[in-house]
Amino acid sequence: MTVYGVILAGGGGTRFWPLSRKDLPKQFLNLTGSDLMINETIERIHKITGKENIFVVTGRNQAELAGKVTGERLLPNHILAEPAARNTAACIGYAAMEILRKYGDGVMCVLPSDHYIRDEEAYAETLSRAVRVAEQTDALVTIGIKPAFPATGYGYIRYEQSEDGTIRGEGQPGDDCDIIAYHNVREFVEKPDLATAKGYVKDGHYSWNSGMFVWKASVILDQFEKLLPDIYQYLCEIGEAMGTGAEQSTIDRVYPVIPKISIDYGIMERADRVVMLDGDFGWSDVGSWDALPALYPTDENGNVLYGEQIHIDTHNCISYAKTKLIAALGVEDLIIVEADDAVLVCRKDMAQQVGKVVEQLKSTGKDQFL
Amino acid sequence: MTVYGVILAGGGGTRFWPLSRKDLPKQFLNLTGSDLMINETIERIHKITGKENIFVVTGRNQAELAGKVTGERLLPNHILAEPAARNTAACIGYAAMEILRKYGDGVMCVLPSDHYIRDEEAYAETLSRAVRVAEQTDALVTIGIKPAFPATGYGYIRYEQSEDGTIRGEGQPGDDCDIIAYHNVREFVEKPDLATAKGYVKDGHYSWNSGMFVWKASVILDQFEKLLPDIYQYLCEIGEAMGTGAEQSTIDRVYPVIPKISIDYGIMERADRVVMLDGDFGWSDVGSWDALPALYPTDENGNVLYGEQIHIDTHNCISYAKTKLIAALGVEDLIIVEADDAVLVCRKDMAQQVGKVVEQLKSTGKDQFL
Repeated sequence: MTVYGVILAGGGGTRFWPLSRKDLPKQFLNLTGSDLMINETIERIHKITGKENIFVVTGRNQAELAGKVTGERLLPNHILAEPAARNTAACIGYAAMEILRKYGDGVMCVLPSDHYIRDEEAYAETLSRAVRVAEQTDALVTIGIKPAFPATGYGYIRYEQSEDGTIRGEGQPGDDCDIIAYHNVREFVEKPDLATAKGYVKDGHYSWNSGMFVWKASVILDQFEKLLPDIYQYLCEIGEAMGTGAEQSTIDRVYPVIPKISIDYGIMERADRVVMLDGDFGWSDVGSWDALPALYPTDENGNVLYGEQIHIDTHNCISYAKTKLIAALGVEDLIIVEADDAVLVCRKDMAQQVGKVVEQLKSTGKDQFL
Repeated sequence: MTVYGVILAGGGGTRFWPLSRKDLPKQFLNLTGSDLMINETIERIHKITGKENIFVVTGRNQAELAGKVTGERLLPNHILAEPAARNTAACIGYAAMEILRKYGDGVMCVLPSDHYIRDEEAYAETLSRAVRVAEQTDALVTIGIKPAFPATGYGYIRYEQSEDGTIRGEGQPGDDCDIIAYHNVREFVEKPDLATAKGYVKDGHYSWNSGMFVWKASVILDQFEKLLPDIYQYLCEIGEAMGTGAEQSTIDRVYPVIPKISIDYGIMERADRVVMLDGDFGWSDVGSWDALPALYPTDENGNVLYGEQIHIDTHNCISYAKTKLIAALGVEDLIIVEADDAVLVCRKDMAQQVGKVVEQLKSTGKDQFL
C-alpha cells in the first residue's frame, strides 16, 4: 500500500521571537544548525514514503516560502495551501481527501513540521511499524513518546498495558522485528501541572502526545463522516470539485467556513479504535528557547552556545547569535538571542512567556519587529 | 591673562566595549544622547576660554578622527598629536610648552575629554574661580569633587580645612561671588577599599580627584624643571624646535622616549603649592557601563534605557541599543549593550570587568571585534 507523508506546516507561534517572525514561523528556522526544521522533517520520512508521496499543508501566505525553501525535496503540486487557518482537523481532512481522490488510498503519516528527533534511525523504524499497524488493523495509530521527565508542556496519552496487541510483519516468521507491540489508547489528557505530571511518569502508563498520527486516508475520512459530519460535508464538497475547473474556487469558498477544531479533540479522543506505539528516539517539540539543550550539547558550564560567542563566568545560559558576536559576563540562567533587527534577553524560566514581548510590540505599533 | 583649555583625549580603555573600540575610545562616543563626550567637553569650556584657545592632545592615530568629529569647534592646528602614548605628565608638559612658545603664557585648564557634568553652570563658575586662583597665586589648582557616596573607583584628595585661603576677585569689593575659598591639599590618595572610602566620606576632608587641573603654563613648566628635570629637558628640546622646520622631526624623535609618568605621581603629589577648589556639579568620570544612571533618568523599575527597548518585568538594568531593538523579560541587575557587530550581556556588579571580554577577544584572535 502506498505510504504518504503529510507534513503540517501551518503553525504561527511567537515563542522563538526574535528569530521566528510573523512571516517566518519556527518550521522555517534552522535551529539545529544543519537545516530548516521543515526540511529535516521531509528528509526524515523520505526513505519511508519516497519523495513523490510527501505533502506539505501550510497557509496560503506561506506556501510560496514553503515551496522556495523545500526546493527539490517536494513535487510542486504537493504543497497544499489553506486559504484560512482552520485548525488541524480541517487540514488533515483536506490532505486525506486530496490523497484519496487524486492518488488513491494509502497510509498517511501525519507529522508536525517543527519537531526535533535525535535518533533518526529509531524514528524511522517506529514509523515503519506504525504504518504496518495502520495498514493491517485500520486503527488510528499515534506515536507516544516515553516521558523523559515530568513535562508540564506536553499533553499525555494514557494507554492500557493489558490490551497490548501484536501484529505479524511482512518479514520472516519468528523474526522479532516483525512482532509489533502496540497499546490501546484509553484517553488523551491535557498538559498537566507538575504534581500530576509526576504522577503520570510514576504510573508508567502515560506517554507524551507527539502529535504524530498514522492511518489510512479512507479510515480517517470514515472517522470524519462519523464524528465530524459537518466538516465531512465540506471536505466532500471540496473533494468533488477536485480535478475540475472549480477546484480552487471551491476551496476558496468552502475552506474558510470549516469549523475550527483540532484532530485531537475532534477525532482522537472520541474514536473507538485508537492505538499507540512507543516512541523512544530523542524527541522534542522544541516549544520554546529553553528547549535548545535538547538539540545541542552543553559546554562545561551548562551553556548552549550557537554562533560567535564569548562567555566568561556564565552558567546554564542559552545564547544564540545569528549575525553578531554575543559576549556574556557573570550571568546565569539566561536566554540571549540576537537576530537581524532585535536582541532578546530573557530569564530562562520565563522562556514560554516570550509571546508577551510580541504582544507588547503589537500594542505599541512596532510592527516591523513582528 | 589668556585662558587656555587643554583637553586630554589620548585615552584608550576597554570598559565601554562593545561601543568603544580600539579606534573609537570613549571620548569619541555619544553616551548622553546629545553629543560626543569630547565635543561636550569643548562646548563646556568654550565660554571660559574662547574657541581659539582650546587645544586637544591625542594620539597620532586618533588625531584625524579628533579633527573630523570636533569640526569647527577647534582650530585645525590646535590638535596636538602625540607620536606615542607617554602618560599624562608628557602630554601636559607638551601642551604647556606649545602654549608658552607659540601663544604666550596664560592659565591652562587641563581637562579630561570623557567625563560627564550635569550642572554646566556650576561647573563653569567653579572653573572660572579656579582660573582666578591660579592666576593670582601661582598655585597648582585642582578641582575636588564633593563625594556623593563612598566610591572605590576614584582617587581621593585629602585637604586641610584649617588653611583655607580666600582671594578677592575682579568684581565689586564685598560681592560674595568674589571671595573664593580654596583648600591647601595635603595629599593625593589611591582608590580605596570600601571601608576606607567610608572613612574618607565620614572624615569630611576628602574629595574625589577629578583629574581637572588649572595652572599657568609657566608655573607647571617650572614644576617640571624642579620635579621632573629629565622630562623637562625633553620638553625644552621640543620647545626649541617649535616654529622651525625641525619641529615635527624633533617631536617624532624625542617624544617617544619621554619617561611615562602621570601628572599626579610626577608633580601633584610632590609639589609645594597645590590647592583645591570644591566642585559640586554632578560629576562622573563615566568609568564603566554601570555609571550610566548618573547620565540618564531611570524608569519606574530602576532601568536606564537608551534606544529602541521593550522591557517586561525587568529591574535595575542598563540597556543600550545602538541599531537594534532590545527586548528583555524578567531580568534584573544586568547591563545589555547592542553595538554594530556585538552584543554584551553583563552582570551589573561586574561592569568594571568588561575588559576581560576584550582580553579574550584578543587572545582568541577575534581582532575584528576589538
